[in-house]
Amino acid sequence: MSPQLGATAGGEPGPHHDGSSLYVGEQTPTAGDRVPISVRVPRSAGVDSVWLRVVEDAEPRYLPATRGAPAGRADGGGPDAGEDWYTADVTVHNPVTHYRVLLDRGPAGYTWLNGSGEHAREVADRHDFRLTTYDPGPDWGPDSVVYQIFPDRFAKSRDRDRPDWAVPAGWDDPVVHVGPDTPLQYYGGDLDGIVEHLDHLTDLGATAVYLTPIYPARSNHRYNATSFDGVDPLLGGDEALARLTAAAHARGLHVIGDFTTNHSGDDHAWFTAARAGGPERGFYYFDGEPGASRPPGRDEYVSWMNHPSLPKFNLESAQLRDRLFGPGDSVVARWLRPPYDLDGWRIDVANMTGRYGPFDHGHDVARELRATLDAVRPGSALLAEHCHDYSADQIGDGGQGAMNYAGFTRPVWSFLTATDNGLGFLGMPQRIPRRGGPGTVATMRDFLASTPWKVALRHWNLLASHDTPRFRTVTGDPALVRVGIGLQMTYPGAPMIFAGEELGLEGVDGEHARTPMPWHRPESWDRETLTAFRELIALRRAHPALRTGGLRWVVETEDAIGFLRETADERLLVVAARAPWSGATLPGRLAAGPVQTCHGGVDLTVSERAVVVPGAGPGIGVWRLA
Amino acid sequence: MSPQLGATAGGEPGPHHDGSSLYVGEQTPTAGDRVPISVRVPRSAGVDSVWLRVVEDAEPRYLPATRGAPAGRADGGGPDAGEDWYTADVTVHNPVTHYRVLLDRGPAGYTWLNGSGEHAREVADRHDFRLTTYDPGPDWGPDSVVYQIFPDRFAKSRDRDRPDWAVPAGWDDPVVHVGPDTPLQYYGGDLDGIVEHLDHLTDLGATAVYLTPIYPARSNHRYNATSFDGVDPLLGGDEALARLTAAAHARGLHVIGDFTTNHSGDDHAWFTAARAGGPERGFYYFDGEPGASRPPGRDEYVSWMNHPSLPKFNLESAQLRDRLFGPGDSVVARWLRPPYDLDGWRIDVANMTGRYGPFDHGHDVARELRATLDAVRPGSALLAEHCHDYSADQIGDGGQGAMNYAGFTRPVWSFLTATDNGLGFLGMPQRIPRRGGPGTVATMRDFLASTPWKVALRHWNLLASHDTPRFRTVTGDPALVRVGIGLQMTYPGAPMIFAGEELGLEGVDGEHARTPMPWHRPESWDRETLTAFRELIALRRAHPALRTGGLRWVVETEDAIGFLRETADERLLVVAARAPWSGATLPGRLAAGPVQTCHGGVDLTVSERAVVVPGAGPGIGVWRLA
Repeated sequence: MSPQLGATAGGEPGPHHDGSSLYVGEQTPTAGDRVPISVRVPRSAGVDSVWLRVVEDAEPRYLPATRGAPAGRADGGGPDAGEDWYTADVTVHNPVTHYRVLLDRGPAGYTWLNGSGEHAREVADRHDFRLTTYDPGPDWGPDSVVYQIFPDRFAKSRDRDRPDWAVPAGWDDPVVHVGPDTPLQYYGGDLDGIVEHLDHLTDLGATAVYLTPIYPARSNHRYNATSFDGVDPLLGGDEALARLTAAAHARGLHVIGDFTTNHSGDDHAWFTAARAGGPERGFYYFDGEPGASRPPGRDEYVSWMNHPSLPKFNLESAQLRDRLFGPGDSVVARWLRPPYDLDGWRIDVANMTGRYGPFDHGHDVARELRATLDAVRPGSALLAEHCHDYSADQIGDGGQGAMNYAGFTRPVWSFLTATDNGLGFLGMPQRIPRRGGPGTVATMRDFLASTPWKVALRHWNLLASHDTPRFRTVTGDPALVRVGIGLQMTYPGAPMIFAGEELGLEGVDGEHARTPMPWHRPESWDRETLTAFRELIALRRAHPALRTGGLRWVVETEDAIGFLRETADERLLVVAARAPWSGATLPGRLAAGPVQTCHGGVDLTVSERAVVVPGAGPGIGVWRLA
Repeated sequence: MSPQLGATAGGEPGPHHDGSSLYVGEQTPTAGDRVPISVRVPRSAGVDSVWLRVVEDAEPRYLPATRGAPAGRADGGGPDAGEDWYTADVTVHNPVTHYRVLLDRGPAGYTWLNGSGEHAREVADRHDFRLTTYDPGPDWGPDSVVYQIFPDRFAKSRDRDRPDWAVPAGWDDPVVHVGPDTPLQYYGGDLDGIVEHLDHLTDLGATAVYLTPIYPARSNHRYNATSFDGVDPLLGGDEALARLTAAAHARGLHVIGDFTTNHSGDDHAWFTAARAGGPERGFYYFDGEPGASRPPGRDEYVSWMNHPSLPKFNLESAQLRDRLFGPGDSVVARWLRPPYDLDGWRIDVANMTGRYGPFDHGHDVARELRATLDAVRPGSALLAEHCHDYSADQIGDGGQGAMNYAGFTRPVWSFLTATDNGLGFLGMPQRIPRRGGPGTVATMRDFLASTPWKVALRHWNLLASHDTPRFRTVTGDPALVRVGIGLQMTYPGAPMIFAGEELGLEGVDGEHARTPMPWHRPESWDRETLTAFRELIALRRAHPALRTGGLRWVVETEDAIGFLRETADERLLVVAARAPWSGATLPGRLAAGPVQTCHGGVDLTVSERAVVVPGAGPGIGVWRLA
């Protein structure tokens, strides 16, 4: 028996659990609650008995599971033919309960089932399933389709006087993406321009807008704010924000802001006062002052990634915390209130926020931020920018989820990238490598298993952002773009679309990707890509299983990967192929009643014994099996 | 290319790094230090360039590594023929710096090298290497061979009056290991009995004694102390402890105590006072009082694993902390001072200590304990009992290491167990399974990679303890016992031997294993096992590489596993086989000069091209290759 068991090219899926509602009776219990937790076990797996290993105060307990109906089937609906469900009641004791499944396989010994699969060896706790008492955030989180807008480049409602820092550009000028003019190139997009194009978002199927920063700054990206007290007049000022949120809300769209809790600009009023020795001095790390343990010989203060234009905040300062995100008149609180009414915040550089040398306030800053959101605007969203391994941070005690670069973007890019595009990934010194299906799935499982299920449902899955090359440029092939869109719209987590992706725009790096939207050149739009986005978003919105259903991997071959998404009410099969492949045969019992081809136009061959997936590719197919 | 690359049955070892001194210029740097970090790369691996990915304030940076001498070769000694070393200087910024290696493999894309091996896919940070600024504890830690004594069963210096709670037993009576008499069966071993047999320990090669509890208690195991103010008079009282530590120290042996920071006995003076409403009431969790969030209907107080005889401490109480382990006249401090002079503490149930429901004081209790040890007896040891995944706790900020059940005992048991012994493991509902080499190595790597190298060197690797079946009973075969001893004496971490293992004693569970030592029946001793312990301990003590050298896995087959242990000065090969196997061929360049067979009596066949390991088994071979 191999030390790691797993799904391959079809065949009988193994025993399964994930944290979804089909398997867990209550997503957010309180201490003392008894929560039924279920495991799905094919009879052919040769499992004699099932136990949950539940950790309480850091010590495991073993709970025998008994055969019966799934935890998530209030209707008492039975299992599929050919499989049993085993359930144990777990009494919640700690804020985070982690658990995994012990499968007694008789003389062969037991195996462990955790979030990365079934293992015929002893495993560490990293991939244990996690049940938490933390409020996961608003219900609209997992249902969101987020549309990201970089305001300078989206749409322009009127001409304005050029600011003194700017290098003006005409809307059709090429984007400058190297050299000193990069942050200064000014196209003049504004918030009323966004209002004028909200129908484009709703036509697409988006449910939320995420705006990169809107505070005044001496750059087009505005991550180096000079003030947090108002919206940049170049974007239309405070009233324009109120108009935008009102117009968006009228269309059922949420609006999420972008806030830099890690740094300000070096010409921010606070930093100017700090340099002059004002009370804000403690907001930053200056040489020779408490907390400034940097090696000497750099600048006089600590800055983000040694960019002197971005002095880093010292969140040891209680006064700074209060002004940034306290429950009173803080920056974070103010813009959640009428008439601005933001529906939440994306936190820039959340991974580094509050962390410097010996100080690590990552979690307590996130918890304070969350408390302010809950107090000021209940039901608002808090998302972290985290481009790396977010698992230690994203347990849901503060932020509700992260931008899922690690668990979605990178593996999907590697699966679908062209081999010779020469593109890199967020500061890495190497080109994006091309990887096969098994490695892709292993990485996706690794990260999906590293956070509680309800957090994973709230991550933002993106194919591209204002910090990356365009996905069209990564893949080099519109057919592969459509495969990526299909994965984005069917994988757990909220899709986030960077404006312009739906039109097939290109860009070789994050700066280059900040392309003005070609509203006036509709003939340049990639209609096939736009249609794929619309159809797959509509599919996601039509099927709760694609938003909150459990996930079982059933295909892992070099050129094709595939999974089931399942609730108590439906089962969808998704197979993404980057090239023609050999196809897969799944057990016939996975299909109940007539099978419906939901996307891709390729039909399955279904009999009582088998569901045969043809080896067509590249392409993505979605089928409703039950 | 498979998503996980790794060593198999010999062949060319891949690129390698571990945290050992051969690869890392400074094990305990201070913030601001530049530490050279090296990677070993065979030229045949096809690696074009090497980078370190170093995480600073939770953000990765990429440092190019340059070809040159290893960080750990102050003599400037060169690499082996056929390989290159790459080094980058890492500036230490955080208390814990984690890093991994990026290997540019040209058109095939890059791979990641971390503590679990080389991976051709994106990986999470769990197996990153870790460099920390924390003092690792005394130098004698990694050099220790620890001998565990359960005082009631080791040796008896005189007859004493039977205590009222006890069920007396003659020294040769069978051990009662089920039913109510189990904790009451009293053999009468004492501390002066240990003094009389210290030569046995030094003859064996032990360097430290670990004593299970010695406080007065109404049980033979004494984990339910009635007082922490003195040594149990049944063991000889306080003076006997002073005599024992003096006698041990005179022989160069360290003495380590066992302390229950998680609970006391229910007849402890503090608990009696607490029940009566005294000031100690806040030391425990009583129903309806702060912190007692337990489900109702159990006992009136929280106890360890619901055993009412072991009420759990509430470490929210600052007064309790001060009395248990404050720097003044606390229990922990007192017995480290003359004339008792303990050299350190093993902390019972360390994983649960300070943890209850929403409260998690695991790390800060460990840090306070460590501060007291450092203040009262610099150079003393602090080890944690942790029977499960210790990786989150054992970063070295408090405790110096853990009893390595998870990363050593369990995988070694599963590799060497008889299939039909019916034995279990620490409360698990299933029998110990039999696993092959690849699963065994995967688990050992997983845990070795999960803690900083210097912490791993201080773990206690055990084949058995007073809480487990005897290893002889687990394996059912003295030949396999010797393979286990061989792994114990050659793997990173300090060997811990439960008294009687060296004589081949048997026991089917922890209670049954608490066998009186058959001093007066030397004809019953298993001389072959005793000799194996002596020889392999001597081998460990003779070769620094076996104590602190790096570790490279080179053999992973179903029935044999093997690794290199390496310092700048020597290279040893260890191969452990549980049965005859097919043998392995390693590159000839691994051997420099004449190869020495250090243990096992089987010679290698060595040529310029190859080092051939014969497929003999069961057995363990150790060879000095360079």
